[in-house]
Amino acid sequence: MAFSGLLSRLRPSSKPIRFIHNFIKHTPKSQSPILDSTILNNHNNNNYQSWRTFLLPIILGGSLAIHFQKNPSLCDAPNLQETGGRIGGKDSTELVVKGSYKPVPSELIHELKAICQDNMTLDHDERYFHGKPQYSFHKAVNIPDVVVFPRSEDEVSKIVQACNKYKVPIVPYGGATSIEGHTLSPNGGVCIDMTLMKNVKALHVKDMDVVVEPGIGWMELNEYLAPYGLFFPLDPGPGATIGGMCGTRCSGSLAVRYGTMRDNVINLKAVLADGEVVKTASRARKSAAGYDLTRLMIGSEGTLGVITEVTLRLQKIPEHSIVAMCNFPTIKDAADVAIAAMLSGIQVSRVELLDEVQVKAINLANGKDLPEFPTLMFELIGTEAYTREQTHIVQKIASEHNGSDFVFAEDKDAKKELWKIRKEALYACLAMAPNCEAMTTDVCVPLSHLAELISKSKQELDASPLLGTVIAHAGDGNFHTVILFNPEDEEQRKEAERLNNFMVHAALSMEGTCTGEHGVGTGKLKYLEKELGTANLRTMRKIKAALDPNGIMNPGKLIPPHVCL
Amino acid sequence: MAFSGLLSRLRPSSKPIRFIHNFIKHTPKSQSPILDSTILNNHNNNNYQSWRTFLLPIILGGSLAIHFQKNPSLCDAPNLQETGGRIGGKDSTELVVKGSYKPVPSELIHELKAICQDNMTLDHDERYFHGKPQYSFHKAVNIPDVVVFPRSEDEVSKIVQACNKYKVPIVPYGGATSIEGHTLSPNGGVCIDMTLMKNVKALHVKDMDVVVEPGIGWMELNEYLAPYGLFFPLDPGPGATIGGMCGTRCSGSLAVRYGTMRDNVINLKAVLADGEVVKTASRARKSAAGYDLTRLMIGSEGTLGVITEVTLRLQKIPEHSIVAMCNFPTIKDAADVAIAAMLSGIQVSRVELLDEVQVKAINLANGKDLPEFPTLMFELIGTEAYTREQTHIVQKIASEHNGSDFVFAEDKDAKKELWKIRKEALYACLAMAPNCEAMTTDVCVPLSHLAELISKSKQELDASPLLGTVIAHAGDGNFHTVILFNPEDEEQRKEAERLNNFMVHAALSMEGTCTGEHGVGTGKLKYLEKELGTANLRTMRKIKAALDPNGIMNPGKLIPPHVCL
Repeated sequence: MAFSGLLSRLRPSSKPIRFIHNFIKHTPKSQSPILDSTILNNHNNNNYQSWRTFLLPIILGGSLAIHFQKNPSLCDAPNLQETGGRIGGKDSTELVVKGSYKPVPSELIHELKAICQDNMTLDHDERYFHGKPQYSFHKAVNIPDVVVFPRSEDEVSKIVQACNKYKVPIVPYGGATSIEGHTLSPNGGVCIDMTLMKNVKALHVKDMDVVVEPGIGWMELNEYLAPYGLFFPLDPGPGATIGGMCGTRCSGSLAVRYGTMRDNVINLKAVLADGEVVKTASRARKSAAGYDLTRLMIGSEGTLGVITEVTLRLQKIPEHSIVAMCNFPTIKDAADVAIAAMLSGIQVSRVELLDEVQVKAINLANGKDLPEFPTLMFELIGTEAYTREQTHIVQKIASEHNGSDFVFAEDKDAKKELWKIRKEALYACLAMAPNCEAMTTDVCVPLSHLAELISKSKQELDASPLLGTVIAHAGDGNFHTVILFNPEDEEQRKEAERLNNFMVHAALSMEGTCTGEHGVGTGKLKYLEKELGTANLRTMRKIKAALDPNGIMNPGKLIPPHVCL
Repeated sequence: MAFSGLLSRLRPSSKPIRFIHNFIKHTPKSQSPILDSTILNNHNNNNYQSWRTFLLPIILGGSLAIHFQKNPSLCDAPNLQETGGRIGGKDSTELVVKGSYKPVPSELIHELKAICQDNMTLDHDERYFHGKPQYSFHKAVNIPDVVVFPRSEDEVSKIVQACNKYKVPIVPYGGATSIEGHTLSPNGGVCIDMTLMKNVKALHVKDMDVVVEPGIGWMELNEYLAPYGLFFPLDPGPGATIGGMCGTRCSGSLAVRYGTMRDNVINLKAVLADGEVVKTASRARKSAAGYDLTRLMIGSEGTLGVITEVTLRLQKIPEHSIVAMCNFPTIKDAADVAIAAMLSGIQVSRVELLDEVQVKAINLANGKDLPEFPTLMFELIGTEAYTREQTHIVQKIASEHNGSDFVFAEDKDAKKELWKIRKEALYACLAMAPNCEAMTTDVCVPLSHLAELISKSKQELDASPLLGTVIAHAGDGNFHTVILFNPEDEEQRKEAERLNNFMVHAALSMEGTCTGEHGVGTGKLKYLEKELGTANLRTMRKIKAALDPNGIMNPGKLIPPHVCL
């Protein structure tokens, strides 16, 4: 069942340019290991600019630093392209990572051409576009030497086999909406842009599942599913593709009801480093047959394989929904209501928390007059009667925790208007300080620690010269701050990084995680040892080495470079 | 927080016997590679007999055969204790597996004694008890040479390190309620009985999670949680321990609402083959930090590590529930109602299907007069109003599919009486034919195929001289048949195996799995290649070899022996 809809591509050119011409034209540039920062700053793409207003940039937090420092006593990683080390000795989480560049052999270019024909490019702008960060502040220390656009699983397999033969790095590329540097090419190599593979291969309405190619976007998919009364219940940034969402184990505001990508994939197919195609499981809803390779691939960020097909679990579009909003004198009251709502046993589908600064930003941006207090927004779904019953339960819980101005909407337009407040929160922040960029943190803690974490973070934000707002998926303890700073001001950038570090370490001290939904990429590498311990990281390294002995799959991501076998 | 309750142990002796005495007394027997079948048949343990009425035995299906056949061209598995081969060439799924026995060096016995003191035994009855199948027909070709009962993670780590040094096999052992041969010791070695490690280490009511040691039973745990209004929503056989439930990725009748073990574990700790202790994740509800080692361990059946701690996600005990029952002229009508109920978007917590033969068995066993038709049983939970609303929706759906005799119960005793019908289904089968044993299949298919699978299976059962009944967790396509046969009659045993094979292959032909919830063990090894393909199995083998290079962790289970690197 072919999928007809198409998203406009974000590449400068809508079609790859013939490679012979570009190979000759661009080979010198393709061998330049470090980008000219003026090119980076001057690059301006309208699509990119318009998409910037949808998606929030994030700063790396220093993990792609200028100076490379390797500590041989720490590691002898099997993959020389993953060299790295730590600053400040054993207890330091400061990590430096830098790609090591080797030009791609021309034999590989010719083999790729034989596989992809016109669906590859060496055009500098194309490679630059695929190599630079789209929605984050990760510094691109390199760009891919070639970008290929496979049209089938067989082509992906042949591409990976060829790259493995020449030990050339591969970076899988989807919507490129991830914000922790997942799609960077620190070692150059081959960028595999999967966005031509976006068919819906099969829809099984009775089984409530769908089989798709990885390049399809979740919004495109939901457009396709709507006529069947079904939807896929994850809502990351617009433009995110299913393959990328698997790679980063993403979630979003609906995770409190439907779980994350981990919980909504029935099986998938992936091309491993040797070109072999693995199907992870059958199409049965549950199975106890063998290792859970599906879950191993989900969240592996392209470091174990390139995903070529995904079978997704679908949900019925709710018969009815109610959106409710309520204000609280303190963040703690709001967080306590989120906890009480979860403990009540009702099936909320969204519990979003905004702090008073965020509400102020929304008032300023949209000329609204919302009470500037910590605010909770709920979505309650089910039958008409049950949504109303749940709304009354939530209202009662809120009133028991000093909640005020409880409002709710059932009418379609009124609900849209209420959700607009939450949806536009990010643009509202940016509107508050037009010359600033925004940096988001992404931490998640056990729910009982959420209030404490937010309070600590707000104290630090209040004491900082930078403006920061709080937005949380409060139902599952996933907490973001949006920190505004002037990207031209190095001091402000450092202060933003300091605040980010503070919040991550605070979360880790509360049995939390350094990333609830954005993934590790290169940006969170330096926190993994503190969160997971060396035995865990060594186990990940062993698995990586067993499945990717040449270390070609998205090197430099997910596993800290100093972790050895 | 220590857990006070204790389940009566199923071991003949309630306390391990001092090892020096037994070492001298039992060493000769411990070196006998094949059990005396008369001992096997004459062994009679009252606890065992009484528990037999709770849990359903399953026959192996020929995968532990008498004759060992190795095909070197198929494999050069790294673990010599996992040798095996296939009968009938490439397309055959007939597999033979047999343990190869090496006596445990006395140095290891002394090292284990230094670690465990009195908490180990060489007593033959103890070893026999731990080596024989508890609730299945897997032939025990060997028994462990020693059984240890660690009291701490540190002891487990030291035990595993010692076994790894001498390359001696390890079999983790919990409630031993699994029915696919997971706890057999085909190669002898060391059985690690985890049932002394059963503490509740921490309960976090606000976070709705609990940290437990692996030896605690799910029923014990729920007794402990009840006063807090919480429960753990998986209901496998009584006596199953949390560690074992992780190992087999178990589920049960509530999986349709709460998911399987995969979905209900936040993190766990495990001792790997080199003795290293790995914690898989933080305590946050969701995380995108690194490979999903939690899910990799869940369902790995002790072949990658020994689980020493588990953090479980808990659920609120429902405010209200209704149990409903309805009859249908055909299995297809009943299955269609299960599909329609899932598509309706209501949140059923149980959807169980019994065929007319099963209902007849219940009538015979309990002197009831239930209409002998295919029957669906539902459990609906939530607020009082919502459970009633859901019941009306289910009643409407049933009436649209020729349902009749729709009854439901809200009163506690009436609900108990209704569920008794489902709970006693297995004893009812056995009561129908007192001299027979029962063999269960465990397959799971996409819901749209359930009616077809059941119809095909019933045709085959009707044409067979053996009596078989159908019980299904219909909400997620998980289907069991209970086949009664005389264990003394080899022809009947073979016919039961043939029926089992037929149903598994029928499920595989419908994009299903050979095991929905019982696991692979040794019993389902022969079906994995057909279900998952060689690339998948080779990937599993690579992971196993990377984490357990000496192949000491529960060898001969989960990965077909002919699969090579």
